[in-house]
Parts: sequence; structure tokens; C-alpha cells
Amino acid sequence: MKNIYIIGVGLIGGSIAKDVKKLNPEIIIFGIDNNEVHLEEALSLKFIDKKATFDDLDQADLVIVSIPVDVTEMLLPQILDKVSDETLVIDSGSTKASICKAVENHPKRRNFLATHPIAGTEFSGPKAAMEGLFVNKTNIICEIEKTAFKLQERALTIFKIMGMNMRYMNPDAHDKHIAYVSHLSHISAFMLGKTVIEKEKNERDIFDLAGSGFASTVRLAKSSPQMWTPIFKQNKTNVIETLEEYISNLTKFKEFMEADNFDDIFNEMENTNHIKKILNGIQ
Amino acid sequence: MKNIYIIGVGLIGGSIAKDVKKLNPEIIIFGIDNNEVHLEEALSLKFIDKKATFDDLDQADLVIVSIPVDVTEMLLPQILDKVSDETLVIDSGSTKASICKAVENHPKRRNFLATHPIAGTEFSGPKAAMEGLFVNKTNIICEIEKTAFKLQERALTIFKIMGMNMRYMNPDAHDKHIAYVSHLSHISAFMLGKTVIEKEKNERDIFDLAGSGFASTVRLAKSSPQMWTPIFKQNKTNVIETLEEYISNLTKFKEFMEADNFDDIFNEMENTNHIKKILNGIQ
Repeated sequence: MKNIYIIGVGLIGGSIAKDVKKLNPEIIIFGIDNNEVHLEEALSLKFIDKKATFDDLDQADLVIVSIPVDVTEMLLPQILDKVSDETLVIDSGSTKASICKAVENHPKRRNFLATHPIAGTEFSGPKAAMEGLFVNKTNIICEIEKTAFKLQERALTIFKIMGMNMRYMNPDAHDKHIAYVSHLSHISAFMLGKTVIEKEKNERDIFDLAGSGFASTVRLAKSSPQMWTPIFKQNKTNVIETLEEYISNLTKFKEFMEADNFDDIFNEMENTNHIKKILNGIQ
Repeated sequence: MKNIYIIGVGLIGGSIAKDVKKLNPEIIIFGIDNNEVHLEEALSLKFIDKKATFDDLDQADLVIVSIPVDVTEMLLPQILDKVSDETLVIDSGSTKASICKAVENHPKRRNFLATHPIAGTEFSGPKAAMEGLFVNKTNIICEIEKTAFKLQERALTIFKIMGMNMRYMNPDAHDKHIAYVSHLSHISAFMLGKTVIEKEKNERDIFDLAGSGFASTVRLAKSSPQMWTPIFKQNKTNVIETLEEYISNLTKFKEFMEADNFDDIFNEMENTNHIKKILNGIQ
């Protein structure tokens, strides 16, 4: 494995580049991005060695696709068209069903591996890329049986050097569960931020009163709308379901308060408190 | 100032004890708590020197009240009854209107200072107490004009050694704004935790898929129901208002999704993104 192409040199693509560079010193990492400024940043941060274009993909041993999920869905068939029979193509999108569907009948389906490395920060772009981002994080791999044996093996070598723990799921189950444990958190944070900003827009110094608890709960509202809009679009049905349940739980909490039923307010919180144990495993 | 009494030797009381100890080496810190185990822990952690009872309060130069807000409201008049004319009594509750109201006509009102140090973690109890918890954090002080001059000065000396920044507000304004920047975040986190736990109760390994984003957004759901139920009760009207606005924003987001209006989904997120700048000042 010598020529690695990273399509999308942002937080995820850049962080993967930093890790795969360690595989062997002869590796050359090529960056492809429609944002020329990002490409120059990636070069000066030295996590890519050269700029490249789609026409160069026939030279690739490995292609990492780390761009918004709607663009992945659109470009992935064309990427597979261009690569050789020996090339491994991996995506890192936060949705899996639409992306797997987009290439299900592609003649080079066996060259593709659908993955979702559960790692990131609320920042984006090349400067947000960091070494070791994936250590001890979960990597969800979908439809591994559709990928060629030796390419499966190559992928696992890469994920091992990244320090990730593998979990195998089908794309529909991935999208359903990830709506709960990831997508809903983002909407919860964005709408919390909106609610507070709207209320306090004329009294900005009120944010002096916000503590670390508010900062933590609203942190994901810093995330990129460019990245998250297509995720919500592709996972629409599941996300709407999570929102309905979340709104219903909030409404019930409000009704308990209106009824001065503070015993049930207490119970609602106590029953959720054991999230402590669940969260202990998450870094 | 020699004899300092801490009523409630948990996260906040304990952390204040650790800081005031630095005022001078002759200070003796007495702990009062209805939880005998907590008192023993506080002694072995050495942030209190001795155990004490309410009957000893006539010896106090300073009393710090750091117990659930409903108990503060109930006990504060009795505490003021017991202390001397020279004693400063400070509370640290997350609500201020009910507590100020409870002592508004007390003959020793001038011995009391109502404060809300905006600091904490999601943990509770003596073991959660930490030195330096309050450094660079905001301390909201209410009705300072009702506190005796020389006791105001004594309080400011203490807050200075704790490293806090003072903000002065009236109790009603405090309760209204803190509902947005603190109380709503807690409910948002508790109900997010509930929604995900309910959905995944039969598939606990699904939490392997949860990343640091989920952990951050749901962190406050580890908070103590004992402490938070009375806060929501005392600040009921304001909290219900914040919940109505939050639910309305979430519902609007869901409706945009149902209508495939992803331009507005994008706008909702982009308009909230500037929370980045606001959060920069919060540690």
C-alpha cells in the first residue's frame, strides 16, 4: 500500500491521514478537495504530501472518502468507476443506508467498505484534524461480507493502527440506532442554543451566568450545518422518530411541573441517573 | 474571622471550605450535615476540622449554607435566629427569589448575603469537593444593599480568595435568566438520556456507538435529583416558560424535516452556530 488518496481533507479525513501515515514511511498521501484553501492548509500542516484530482484515482491503493454524506452518495459510484480492481475505498459517513444503496449494484462493490468511525469534535476543516482522534473509539462497519476478503484485511490493518474497536451492523440498524445516540444529541444542542440565544439576544452579558454545564450541553451546536443537514436528510425517518419521543418526554416533564407533581419530576431524574454507568465507558 | 460553619458538606460546601481554609491558618472549619456518613467523609478528607450542630452556630463568624434550596428556604430563618449580630451568613443556592423572600422581614436580614456561585460538576457529596472549583467563575450576588456594610466587605474578601467574578442582580432577574442558561440545560440532558435509555433498554451494547458528543450533551443527567427537584419547584414558572420555548423550537425543527425543508434546517443550525463565540468565554 503506497498511494493513499484522501477525498475531503477536513477533521475526519485529516485525522485519518495523520494515522495512516504511520503504516509505513514510503506512503504518499494525496489530497482531493473542492476547497482549494483547505488543500493548501492540509499541505502546510503536512498531513497530505500532494494535491490530486479525481483523474488520478486509478493510481490509488486506498481511497478514504470523508465528505458530506450527500456528496458521498453522489460521488461514490464515480470513484469506484475510476479505481483499479485492487483498490480499497472506505467512506466515513454518519449515515450508512443511502450510501450502501448507492453502490449496491456497482460492478466494483467489492472494492468498497462502508464504515462510520464514531469520533470527532465540534470543529471542522483541516486545522481541526488531530492525531490519535480514533484511539479506543468505535468503528461501525456495515456489510463487510460484500467487500473482497483481502481488502477486508487491508481495512482492518488500517483500523488497528488507528486504535479503533470494530462493531459490525447492517446499514438500517446503524442508521436507526445512531439517530438516538448521535443525531438527536445534535438537534437537542442546536435547539437549546437557539432557545437561549433568542431569549437573551438583547442581554448578551447574561451569558456571563452560563456555567460549564450549559457549555457542555450546547457544545454540539458548534457543529457544521454543511455536514449535518445532509445527515438529517438521509436519516429523516429515524431522526423524526427520535424527535417525537424526545418532545413527548419533555412535554410530560412540563406537565408534571404544571401539576406540581414533583414526586414524578424526582422519579424522572432518578430513573435516568444510571446513565452514569452507561457513560463511564465513553471518553 | 476564626470559626467558619459549613452547613451541607457536599460538592459546593466542601469546595468552599477548601478555599476559605486559605484565608488564614487559624481558621477552624465546622461541618453540619444531617448525613453522618458525609460528615465523616468530610473529616477524613480534612476540609472540615470538627463536626458541629445548629446549637453551636452562636459561635460562628461565618456560616456557609450549601444544601438543597427547599431546605435552605426552611432553615435560613432559624439559622439567622441563632447567629450573633456580627456573623455573616451566605447561601449558595441555584434559586434566589424564594430564599430572599423567606428572610425579607427577618430582624437579622442584614447578616445574610444571597449568592449563587455558578460552578459545579455533575457529581455530588464530599468526595466531589475540589479546590479551585470557583476560579474565574461567576458569582451572582442578590440584594447586596440589604447586607450590612462590613459584612459585604467580609464576603467580598472570601469571594476574592475563591477567585470569583461578581455580578449583581435582583432575585427575580436571576431566577428568570438562570432558568435559560442553567435549569433548561439540565432538563434537556435528563430527557435526552431518558429518550435514549428507553429506546435502547434491550440493547445496551448500543451505547458502544455513543461518542463523546452524546456524553457531553447528556452529562448533566448525572446530576442529583435531590438537589434539582426543589430547584425546579422553586423556579417553576420560569422553567415552564423555557420548556415551552424549547419544545416549540424542537417541534418547528421536526416540521421542517417532515416538509423536506432542508434549507430551513440548514438555516436553523447556521443561525445558532455563533454560539461558538458566546461559549468561548465559558470554561
